[in-house]
Amino acid sequence: MTYCVAMRLDEGLLFASDSRTNAGVDHIATFRKMTVFELPGERLIVLLNSGNLATTQSVISLLRQRLHGEGTHLMNVPTLYDAAELVGRTIKEVLARDAEPTLDQGVDFGGHFLVGGQIQGEHCRLFHVYAEGNFIEASKDTPYFQIGESKYGKPIIDRVVQHDTSLAEAAKCTLISFDSTIRSNLSVGLPIDILLYRAGSFAAARPQRITGDDPYFNKLRRGWGEGLRKVFARLPEAKWFEQEQS
Amino acid sequence: MTYCVAMRLDEGLLFASDSRTNAGVDHIATFRKMTVFELPGERLIVLLNSGNLATTQSVISLLRQRLHGEGTHLMNVPTLYDAAELVGRTIKEVLARDAEPTLDQGVDFGGHFLVGGQIQGEHCRLFHVYAEGNFIEASKDTPYFQIGESKYGKPIIDRVVQHDTSLAEAAKCTLISFDSTIRSNLSVGLPIDILLYRAGSFAAARPQRITGDDPYFNKLRRGWGEGLRKVFARLPEAKWFEQEQS
Repeated sequence: MTYCVAMRLDEGLLFASDSRTNAGVDHIATFRKMTVFELPGERLIVLLNSGNLATTQSVISLLRQRLHGEGTHLMNVPTLYDAAELVGRTIKEVLARDAEPTLDQGVDFGGHFLVGGQIQGEHCRLFHVYAEGNFIEASKDTPYFQIGESKYGKPIIDRVVQHDTSLAEAAKCTLISFDSTIRSNLSVGLPIDILLYRAGSFAAARPQRITGDDPYFNKLRRGWGEGLRKVFARLPEAKWFEQEQS
Repeated sequence: MTYCVAMRLDEGLLFASDSRTNAGVDHIATFRKMTVFELPGERLIVLLNSGNLATTQSVISLLRQRLHGEGTHLMNVPTLYDAAELVGRTIKEVLARDAEPTLDQGVDFGGHFLVGGQIQGEHCRLFHVYAEGNFIEASKDTPYFQIGESKYGKPIIDRVVQHDTSLAEAAKCTLISFDSTIRSNLSVGLPIDILLYRAGSFAAARPQRITGDDPYFNKLRRGWGEGLRKVFARLPEAKWFEQEQS
């Protein structure tokens, strides 16, 4: 499995992905799930992917390969919307080639992508491209998308993140969300790739790789765990239960 | 969907279930998912169910109906293991009757049960009976089971609950786990039914129904939410991010 989160906040964009892939528990490997297409000063497009690795790798390879050809590609699409549409079209192309119904043996060939960034002339935008190739866009009301093993880490994001949350706070919340997911689900694992982009900066992307011995991440997970236990300990016990004891 | 949790702790047993069922978002109803079979002083058997409501209701109706007939039933099985086996057998019976492959229209007829309690001569025991009718038993290493929408509420239980956790602490943790789940998933809803049983007491079951205006539950969810935000606010921000700003 996989866990990826992307956020479109007033301050800018956040992208984060784990790096574990598994086909059953006996075939676990590490793959980067964050792909950056950029021309500093002009455009940044970031892809996060989950789902069938053969499908998502093929989609990314084709998107890369075509940068050097004629026709539409991620470095010349005029808008993020067109970028999402191109990713969706490439998913359908790969599935049409690989997902031979008579041969699929019940394998799920589906791949999901989060596609976000900024192109000169536009605000920051973020899209969730479904396995079917269609897509939705993040808004002020729904400023974040998750793909993969999203449920364990959703409650903390729901409690903290709104469109006006700062990038720094969102990064903190995202790493805690990954910590909760990694604790509860073997199929999500370190390292975490995280990329923060300040709206309008068109700065060169500086993704960070968070490993198990990252001092900040360890301080965060320790502080969060201890903090939770303290809050929990201070909360009262049920009156009806105390009565039951007497 | 549904969310149910059961725990087998040194101190005794905990059972909790939400009460929302839905077939699509346009057909939401409230059903109790906790069923108690008891003879105070001799036995307590509690069932929690998730999955296809037609299947789980039929299983419970048949188990109830047969209490008054000859043959094996939940009030005369000698062990909890036999109770779990009987529930599993009844699931298979209902599926054999209802889940006509040619007519199923892709509907999932599966139903899951958590079966726990105590029968004179045995310790407390807890089983997870799968939709296929087979089952596993909780142990000191794995003292709790969840069925239904289990992922949102799993991280807090993983952080707090071990076999030697007190029933009162476990009840607190369980209600917080439900709060997180209800916030993040529309298909799980109040009221919550919760039942605590002290090992060896063979006392009459006193399930509690936690509604939206339950003062304890509201104090708990408020205290937890505020506590989390405080802990979160006190945690440091990433150095690498601060550098990025400068």
